[in-house]
Amino acid sequence: MRHLLDVCDLSVKELDELIALAEDIAANKQKYAHIMDGKKLAALFFEPSTRTRLSFEAAMLELGGQTLGFSEASSSSAAKGECVRDTIRVVGGYADIIAMRHPLEGAALSAAMKSYVPIINAGDGGHCHPTQTLADLLTIHREEGRLDHLKIGLCGDLLYGRTVHSLINAMIRYEGVSFVLISPRELELPPYALDVLKRAGVNYVVTRSLEEFMSELDVLYMTRVQRERFSSIEEYEKVKDCYILTPEKLLSAKPTMRILHPLPRVNEISQLVDDDKRAAYFRQTVNGKLMRMALLVYLLRDDVRSQPARLASGKSYDGKCQNPKCITNNERELPVLVNEQGRCIYCEHELKM
Amino acid sequence: MRHLLDVCDLSVKELDELIALAEDIAANKQKYAHIMDGKKLAALFFEPSTRTRLSFEAAMLELGGQTLGFSEASSSSAAKGECVRDTIRVVGGYADIIAMRHPLEGAALSAAMKSYVPIINAGDGGHCHPTQTLADLLTIHREEGRLDHLKIGLCGDLLYGRTVHSLINAMIRYEGVSFVLISPRELELPPYALDVLKRAGVNYVVTRSLEEFMSELDVLYMTRVQRERFSSIEEYEKVKDCYILTPEKLLSAKPTMRILHPLPRVNEISQLVDDDKRAAYFRQTVNGKLMRMALLVYLLRDDVRSQPARLASGKSYDGKCQNPKCITNNERELPVLVNEQGRCIYCEHELKM
Amino acid sequence: MRHLLDVCDLSVKELDELIALAEDIAANKQKYAHIMDGKKLAALFFEPSTRTRLSFEAAMLELGGQTLGFSEASSSSAAKGECVRDTIRVVGGYADIIAMRHPLEGAALSAAMKSYVPIINAGDGGHCHPTQTLADLLTIHREEGRLDHLKIGLCGDLLYGRTVHSLINAMIRYEGVSFVLISPRELELPPYALDVLKRAGVNYVVTRSLEEFMSELDVLYMTRVQRERFSSIEEYEKVKDCYILTPEKLLSAKPTMRILHPLPRVNEISQLVDDDKRAAYFRQTVNGKLMRMALLVYLLRDDVRSQPARLASGKSYDGKCQNPKCITNNERELPVLVNEQGRCIYCEHELKM
Repeated sequence: MRHLLDVCDLSVKELDELIALAEDIAANKQKYAHIMDGKKLAALFFEPSTRTRLSFEAAMLELGGQTLGFSEASSSSAAKGECVRDTIRVVGGYADIIAMRHPLEGAALSAAMKSYVPIINAGDGGHCHPTQTLADLLTIHREEGRLDHLKIGLCGDLLYGRTVHSLINAMIRYEGVSFVLISPRELELPPYALDVLKRAGVNYVVTRSLEEFMSELDVLYMTRVQRERFSSIEEYEKVKDCYILTPEKLLSAKPTMRILHPLPRVNEISQLVDDDKRAAYFRQTVNGKLMRMALLVYLLRDDVRSQPARLASGKSYDGKCQNPKCITNNERELPVLVNEQGRCIYCEHELKM
Repeated sequence: MRHLLDVCDLSVKELDELIALAEDIAANKQKYAHIMDGKKLAALFFEPSTRTRLSFEAAMLELGGQTLGFSEASSSSAAKGECVRDTIRVVGGYADIIAMRHPLEGAALSAAMKSYVPIINAGDGGHCHPTQTLADLLTIHREEGRLDHLKIGLCGDLLYGRTVHSLINAMIRYEGVSFVLISPRELELPPYALDVLKRAGVNYVVTRSLEEFMSELDVLYMTRVQRERFSSIEEYEKVKDCYILTPEKLLSAKPTMRILHPLPRVNEISQLVDDDKRAAYFRQTVNGKLMRMALLVYLLRDDVRSQPARLASGKSYDGKCQNPKCITNNERELPVLVNEQGRCIYCEHELKM
Repeated sequence: MRHLLDVCDLSVKELDELIALAEDIAANKQKYAHIMDGKKLAALFFEPSTRTRLSFEAAMLELGGQTLGFSEASSSSAAKGECVRDTIRVVGGYADIIAMRHPLEGAALSAAMKSYVPIINAGDGGHCHPTQTLADLLTIHREEGRLDHLKIGLCGDLLYGRTVHSLINAMIRYEGVSFVLISPRELELPPYALDVLKRAGVNYVVTRSLEEFMSELDVLYMTRVQRERFSSIEEYEKVKDCYILTPEKLLSAKPTMRILHPLPRVNEISQLVDDDKRAAYFRQTVNGKLMRMALLVYLLRDDVRSQPARLASGKSYDGKCQNPKCITNNERELPVLVNEQGRCIYCEHELKM
């Protein structure tokens, strides 16, 4: 049985297969309309996320399956002190596959270790959100016709934006991809993510200006710049407008450039941009549904179900994980395990050895 | 593509067609049991309303379709600052039709302007709630056999009760309808609604007494008198019992009179009235489901989908809408538009020119 | 039309029939996969309970039916002051059967009295939770092959644990059943429940030790010992570890003994016990789903639907029920009725005559 906890759980070959499957589903809805008849998806959202939850539910329904679940933890047994693993094991008796979102990092891994059914990580705190990255990849593929030889601008909060980190990790596996990193100084890509780029030998430039490289971009991936990230309101006020996309800033962009955004947006893309053909973010949400459909079909396919799980493993560690948002600090009887890089296998934070 | 934002979006001919369709559905459940196979309704409730939400969901399920959505804004992206139009556009990629309730006036119109799929207004603040009126109309039609030549008593809060205003607007289009307006002085029908009656040349009388015209009524439409509406508790205490319907007050009523109520009731109709054949309010909720079924079928019919939208439009206005509950005061980049009557097209409040 | 409010609403013969039906469903899923096509279950949870709600929903979906409902009262009309009976009567127009959980004792009975469709009590405060007991009975039956001639250990909070009381009431109807009552002094079985055992002539022993009779038990039913139940933290700290089940405490248990728990657990069973074959509590949740499937099939069967309801009845009582959690103290126009034992028919508390 396979799970999807991190986008890198999937090989490039598997990603290609999922993309091809998603395209086939888009082209032949009727062919897939009953493929999940009699099957159930449990959508367990320990923290709210409408878009992601509805996307999963729509995906399962369009395949002929059914859904159940909850949309916030207050409606769940978690409020009574039940551990995530118990909830998942119980729900595994009610559904064929589980999509879960949880505020704690590593929650999906702890769940997968005990689950009787495949787990899809629909977001575990700031850690991973692989189905968003699948949506991003399908969108780039459908809009640009390829995943290689692309210049990708990443704009906004590159420090905390997990979708950005995840997209980098996925895209560096394709040839000829380069990045333009557009952010205020306070929200630059963190050192470990820069290391990923360097080790992969990927070209990138760093800029403060959304417009400087606009004319060269194939893809512009926008994210939100949040006030809370700045040390002072003055710092925030100084830069905020620079990272708001308007029709004017788009003037120099190629007609084939595409604008992506994980949504929800607040004001980082003007509504005046919405009707521009280059605005791909609403199509991106439909692609998210298509990739989730592909993923459901894939993980429940007999040959994939019979594969062994590929879960992160590690050795026992004598101490606590320093990350307060790590699942190990919040669940009963869940010991920290350390991987070969000296990191907690759940949240991937470095452990002091 | 047509939407239903206000009951007056429908012509009398269309209303008749919907009523006939609802009657046919009631009589031939099996014929309609798979008409929505493979289709999805999104029920987006930015504020809770069990009855309306469950009625829509039951309607879609009985037609063979499926449902998804949320039951309060805290479970939705709205909590993250997303605008209504974005939510609706995204959900339009997940569902074939959307029923939405929102606390702000004009929210449904702002949504319909951007939506890829038909929008049904399931209540936008105190502004409109057209499917309640459809339920009322079907109930009168089924119970009385006609919509014309009826004397209709409206009792309770005629000042703020939007169901009452909406019912008046719908019923004055039928011949020979007259009204008995029964309320305390504090909760009389507002001047603009009286104007509607006068302009239409419709007969009406005003009374403080629930019993005065009881013997003449064909329909008695009850609503709740809320304490908060009164300037003092003394004023409230003085009148409240007068507007509570009891078996005693019904003694003089015709055997063919029917009692309607939009529900939920608190104490304005005694439970002792429930078993009276004239109590139609529980049948009314079933009629609400039937009309929602008819509406779903109608709006998704090919010939109706190919019609152009008939949305309110207006000219740009240099200023804000004074109504604090207007959607324009709460959504980013949504400019006020003014119609030919000098009113905001979203909430219909008068704009100071 | 029959309802299920209390497990004793079912005769032993009916229980046997339900167990046989559940076993048949487990063995022939496909045979039952469309038996509820076109039918709807309303799951009305006036207080949250994930496990129970999802179990009911999964049950209905696996029978081919559909579900709707709410997962907490804040999303329901109850927040607007509607009485439970009105909600149930309205929802009876939207669904074929209702499963309801409510924080007040007797809420399900008050609902059943007015309902147009069968009511299943999914928990009414601390009063009854019959489908949990059905899950327990099926588990014992499937794991031990019988319901008679069993020695059953009940461990933990025997004072407040309604699942324990309900299990006792159900099991004493079978021959040769005996009990080991394992609890701290503060949480002993209450006198009225001891009376039940005595009157039925059932053997039992009382002990403070989880291990004393371990080697003799066929079933060990664990429940949680909550800090709030003790007069002081010292008292709690003194005993709490004694009632936590660990692999060590299991050393003397028979290989055929089975451990049950209504879940959610907090720490009363170590996760180290989970992989022991004797741990039946996760299978128990699947059995809960199976029994709910059987119950849905049973209550909607034509011959059962045509039976008269068997609701508790009583004479009018001149006064209030002293139980503050009784539904009669919280619903408008719901008079107290007293049964032949001098108890309130809703919550079964003794009424001072």
